[in-house]
Amino acid sequence: MKRDLDRLMAERNLDGFLVMGEGHGPVMKYLTSGGFFEGALLLKPRGEEVTLVHGMMERDTAAATGLRTVNREEHFNGYELLKEFKGDRLAANAAYLARAMEMMGLRGRVGVYGLQDAGATMALMSKVQEMIEEIEVVGEYGETLFSQAFVTKDDAELEILKRAGRLTCAVVGEVQAFIQEHAVGRDETVLKAGGDPLTIGDVKEFMRGSLHAKGLAEDHGTIFSQGRDAGVPHNSGDPSMPLQLGRSIIFDIYPTTEEGYFHDMTRTWSLGYASDEVQAAYDQTKEIFDRVMSELALGRPTREYQLMVCDFYEAQGHRTVRSHPGTEEGYVHSLGHGIGLEIHEGPRFSHAQGEETLLQPGHVVTIEPGLYYPNRGYGVRVEDAVAFNEAGELIWLTDYPYDLVVPMRG
Amino acid sequence: MKRDLDRLMAERNLDGFLVMGEGHGPVMKYLTSGGFFEGALLLKPRGEEVTLVHGMMERDTAAATGLRTVNREEHFNGYELLKEFKGDRLAANAAYLARAMEMMGLRGRVGVYGLQDAGATMALMSKVQEMIEEIEVVGEYGETLFSQAFVTKDDAELEILKRAGRLTCAVVGEVQAFIQEHAVGRDETVLKAGGDPLTIGDVKEFMRGSLHAKGLAEDHGTIFSQGRDAGVPHNSGDPSMPLQLGRSIIFDIYPTTEEGYFHDMTRTWSLGYASDEVQAAYDQTKEIFDRVMSELALGRPTREYQLMVCDFYEAQGHRTVRSHPGTEEGYVHSLGHGIGLEIHEGPRFSHAQGEETLLQPGHVVTIEPGLYYPNRGYGVRVEDAVAFNEAGELIWLTDYPYDLVVPMRG
Repeated sequence: MKRDLDRLMAERNLDGFLVMGEGHGPVMKYLTSGGFFEGALLLKPRGEEVTLVHGMMERDTAAATGLRTVNREEHFNGYELLKEFKGDRLAANAAYLARAMEMMGLRGRVGVYGLQDAGATMALMSKVQEMIEEIEVVGEYGETLFSQAFVTKDDAELEILKRAGRLTCAVVGEVQAFIQEHAVGRDETVLKAGGDPLTIGDVKEFMRGSLHAKGLAEDHGTIFSQGRDAGVPHNSGDPSMPLQLGRSIIFDIYPTTEEGYFHDMTRTWSLGYASDEVQAAYDQTKEIFDRVMSELALGRPTREYQLMVCDFYEAQGHRTVRSHPGTEEGYVHSLGHGIGLEIHEGPRFSHAQGEETLLQPGHVVTIEPGLYYPNRGYGVRVEDAVAFNEAGELIWLTDYPYDLVVPMRG
Repeated sequence: MKRDLDRLMAERNLDGFLVMGEGHGPVMKYLTSGGFFEGALLLKPRGEEVTLVHGMMERDTAAATGLRTVNREEHFNGYELLKEFKGDRLAANAAYLARAMEMMGLRGRVGVYGLQDAGATMALMSKVQEMIEEIEVVGEYGETLFSQAFVTKDDAELEILKRAGRLTCAVVGEVQAFIQEHAVGRDETVLKAGGDPLTIGDVKEFMRGSLHAKGLAEDHGTIFSQGRDAGVPHNSGDPSMPLQLGRSIIFDIYPTTEEGYFHDMTRTWSLGYASDEVQAAYDQTKEIFDRVMSELALGRPTREYQLMVCDFYEAQGHRTVRSHPGTEEGYVHSLGHGIGLEIHEGPRFSHAQGEETLLQPGHVVTIEPGLYYPNRGYGVRVEDAVAFNEAGELIWLTDYPYDLVVPMRG
């Protein structure tokens, strides 16, 4: 949580941090509640407040963040820096960073964060390190200051995530009703009023309108895949494919609110009826989903749930990522992930070596078991997002029926 | 242009490149025509084709790019790497990068690119460099391989950019018509049917619907600011502010197509009538805009146009960024910038030291002179995007009337 930043810095022996780069990256969004133009910086010595260094043209937006602000042009005018460094942009920008850190009183070990081109980071940071001796510029990997802050949400963030869940479920409901309005042709193809087949592209078009009307954005696309394609987890669906009865459809939707927070949920549908094989795979998946959900509890290792799902599926004769790493059939992924300002963040639900996370208050996670058989023409997955609030209560963020079969007219 | 990559690599003495990081970054989009999930890599030895290393779950999307593909799980299974490195994610991922580079035959000087957390890049790249001796990992800054490739568009990209311009102008036209449908109250406030004032928030809401209907996305917001707020270039407008007659409105819109390409244009409007002062500032701005446009020519330095605008405005008694670096009044920014997969890319139109760009075929740029007087309650700006195609012809991408005064009913 945001309020843990000083503690997390102390645990890492960091005396301060610097956030730079692409203004719409998750860390910049987290600290400014909205994002910023290029060239903005966020700086914080441990125990002190965050300062936003912003371009002159963004001074109103900067003031609206409520952060302490510094107008870049007043102190680090870009034209003058370029003159000082004879047109060398690398040196001029490194000097900007070095001087901003000095001005904010940063010294000692300073962690650097923010979404930025990898090569630019390497060039810039080695130049900055040359320029200032009293600072050690530190790059963290994996469990970083911000990934650790992100991993637990405070109740204010949880309110946004709850709204994201409600709105997303409403969109899924509208999409289901839209499909159900259609007639079915004699070859079991779903038909539009004019007699043309209703395609995945048509469904996505309708869905985008529904998302838009609710103020949600589709940052990373949406998966609506049918039949064999549903058997490939991240196949987002062929827009030209007509909807047909009796085929598994995976509808995995992960939109963002205007604040940038994601919801993430999946339903598997089979229009009209389901084949015995798909129904059986779905029933197994729903059974282990329910079991995991009923056993989610604070203090338990996330790894255990993934192992529980592997045990269950393997006992039913399926391959899993544990029994067959890299398998394309059976249970091919890990059980879930955190959601927040990133679609995939901590905690992980993986059986991988080194995974030692325990469930704790503030975790907001997806649980998404599934079975994939592309060569048999299907895949199934069920996914809800749930949270532990600050008081440690389990809160369900996804509230939508689980019926596999979507009845069609006639 | 994409076809220049080998030449640009040779000019930089690069034997290959590696692109990693956030899958939806501009370089990843450029090479895959769409973007990718985390953990994907793009690798290319100079003179050879690009290879995409992708997650098993993305194998269909990977195949659709038409690139040579490698399924990560088959060669660099994440679970096995973590086991090998005893749960150390940094070492496991560095080994993934090192082995992928080795497998693709990368050696010598390898440039690294892609949007990624700055600290993660530092940690990862120094670990990778420790692991492989036959490669020198190179971070470029400023005029990099990709910023240089991006700066000239081929005619196929130009077709997308033309469409972006047509659609954006259509949205601006719908927004103008929407405003003009409204009545005006006795205090010169624009009114909705029920008698409530029409606000900037209402206009943006309408605009979002119009963008959506045309398949455009609002990646970085939109500026629709009135009066004093129009005097602060990146103030995006107060949603609660009612529209009023006779105040300058800056409407700066920069949406993206589904391919990720930006358009960028600005109109200044004054509803009903304009004050003499705003009209005069606007006329000056339109005059220098027209002069710059009529003089745009291949081979000329972009710097000259910025100097021409500073000369002009200073002669009219305004401060400029040249005469008063950091000024908040007068002409406060540079004349324009390139657009493409990024909203701000090369070429620059700046008078800054070291700026030596000459206009060339493939450049796609905005030209946007403006005057800002927040303390006098206004700002004005005119911005069109234009391109030089591969044959060197000047192509106008923005086609929309320049009238300052938007007539209102009654």
